[in-house]
Amino acid sequence: MNRVPDSELTLVPGGTLITATAEEGRALALAIARHTIHNIQPDLDVLVAGRPQYATDPQALMRAGHVVAVEFATIAAANNYWRA
Amino acid sequence: MNRVPDSELTLVPGGTLITATAEEGRALALAIARHTIHNIQPDLDVLVAGRPQYATDPQALMRAGHVVAVEFATIAAANNYWRA
Amino acid sequence: MNRVPDSELTLVPGGTLITATAEEGRALALAIARHTIHNIQPDLDVLVAGRPQYATDPQALMRAGHVVAVEFATIAAANNYWRA
Amino acid sequence: MNRVPDSELTLVPGGTLITATAEEGRALALAIARHTIHNIQPDLDVLVAGRPQYATDPQALMRAGHVVAVEFATIAAANNYWRA
Amino acid sequence: MNRVPDSELTLVPGGTLITATAEEGRALALAIARHTIHNIQPDLDVLVAGRPQYATDPQALMRAGHVVAVEFATIAAANNYWRA
Amino acid sequence: MNRVPDSELTLVPGGTLITATAEEGRALALAIARHTIHNIQPDLDVLVAGRPQYATDPQALMRAGHVVAVEFATIAAANNYWRA
Repeated sequence: MNRVPDSELTLVPGGTLITATAEEGRALALAIARHTIHNIQPDLDVLVAGRPQYATDPQALMRAGHVVAVEFATIAAANNYWRA
Repeated sequence: MNRVPDSELTLVPGGTLITATAEEGRALALAIARHTIHNIQPDLDVLVAGRPQYATDPQALMRAGHVVAVEFATIAAANNYWRA
Repeated sequence: MNRVPDSELTLVPGGTLITATAEEGRALALAIARHTIHNIQPDLDVLVAGRPQYATDPQALMRAGHVVAVEFATIAAANNYWRA
Repeated sequence: MNRVPDSELTLVPGGTLITATAEEGRALALAIARHTIHNIQPDLDVLVAGRPQYATDPQALMRAGHVVAVEFATIAAANNYWRA
Repeated sequence: MNRVPDSELTLVPGGTLITATAEEGRALALAIARHTIHNIQPDLDVLVAGRPQYATDPQALMRAGHVVAVEFATIAAANNYWRA
Repeated sequence: MNRVPDSELTLVPGGTLITATAEEGRALALAIARHTIHNIQPDLDVLVAGRPQYATDPQALMRAGHVVAVEFATIAAANNYWRA
């Protein structure tokens, strides 16, 4: 198996939900969502093979966006919404 | 690749979840949802090709609306619901 | 294009999440969900054409109900659940 | 059109999210979910025709259960979870 | 109709969201999710007929798990997350 | 039936939602999601048979990721987001 590199398997990259900015928090949401998929399916070839299937399908892109939205809700609450 | 412009790739347009009004907060929810899709699929031609597919499909429109609703929940909490 | 009227495009009708009663809050949830769809697809003919497709499909009706439930959660929190 | 009776169209039956017990709160979640569907599709014949379609389909039943779960989350929070 | 027994129709088994442990809270989430389905479809024969259909379908199992996750979020909040 | 081992059936592995780190909290979210499936379908052969079906399907992987996101939201709140 062509395994996803270890750095892509950390469940919470950076080890914390706290970020300096909302932009970084959103990037963390994307990373956490992606790393979860990597943990469930760590075979890079399978992941790469599936990419064209969902990245050109509006419904699948929206599903991905939905998952990121749920992750972001948690991260935003953790950071008190980066209120000044 | 005909890449989505950089301004459409910022994850949190404006860099903050705080908005003056509920209307602006809702517009931000739409923008954040859209920019997330752009980050996952930055090829403008693919995005444009998919548009007629979901924009005329009630189920896909509802799925889009669902994602916006989740984003808005976070933004509304960040703004203490714009209570007077 | 036969465009949805402007009044149907306001993202937060009335400009606030605060309502006098739970019933009005629920009506606002329905309106916000609907206006989001109008913003993504402002062509009235497309919307009208899609109506029979989802309004007679139990799964689509439940999806619509799901979106309204998420919007209502936000509005109910904004109003402290209309506790006496 | 054979219209759903008015009592089935009230968006928040009883006009409040506050209930005496968790059991009543759960019943309210079911009622609110159902009445939302009635508002989107008030034609009783269409609703009755769709019933066998989803009530014998495990996936559709789970979707219905999902919507009730979201409504209940709001009602339970409104009631401070009926803590003694 | 071969009706689900009354004990399986109680919407909130035990009448409260408060449990002694997280394990019991999770079991309650499963029970509440199941009893909701029973209320929507109380015909035991239909339920039993649908069982093989979803219990061998990974997507349907995940949907079931999703509903339980939403119910558990409410129950966990009700119990202040069973913090010591 | 080739039954899932008892250790895989505990609904809340470790009996608590409290973890030392965000990384452990995320691992718990994955475990709770998986054990819920095991409780609904405890036949190991059925689970193993379904694995290739969803682990190579991007949509199914995203659905799994969605469930983990919802579980994690609860666990993160339980741990006050592991704020320092």
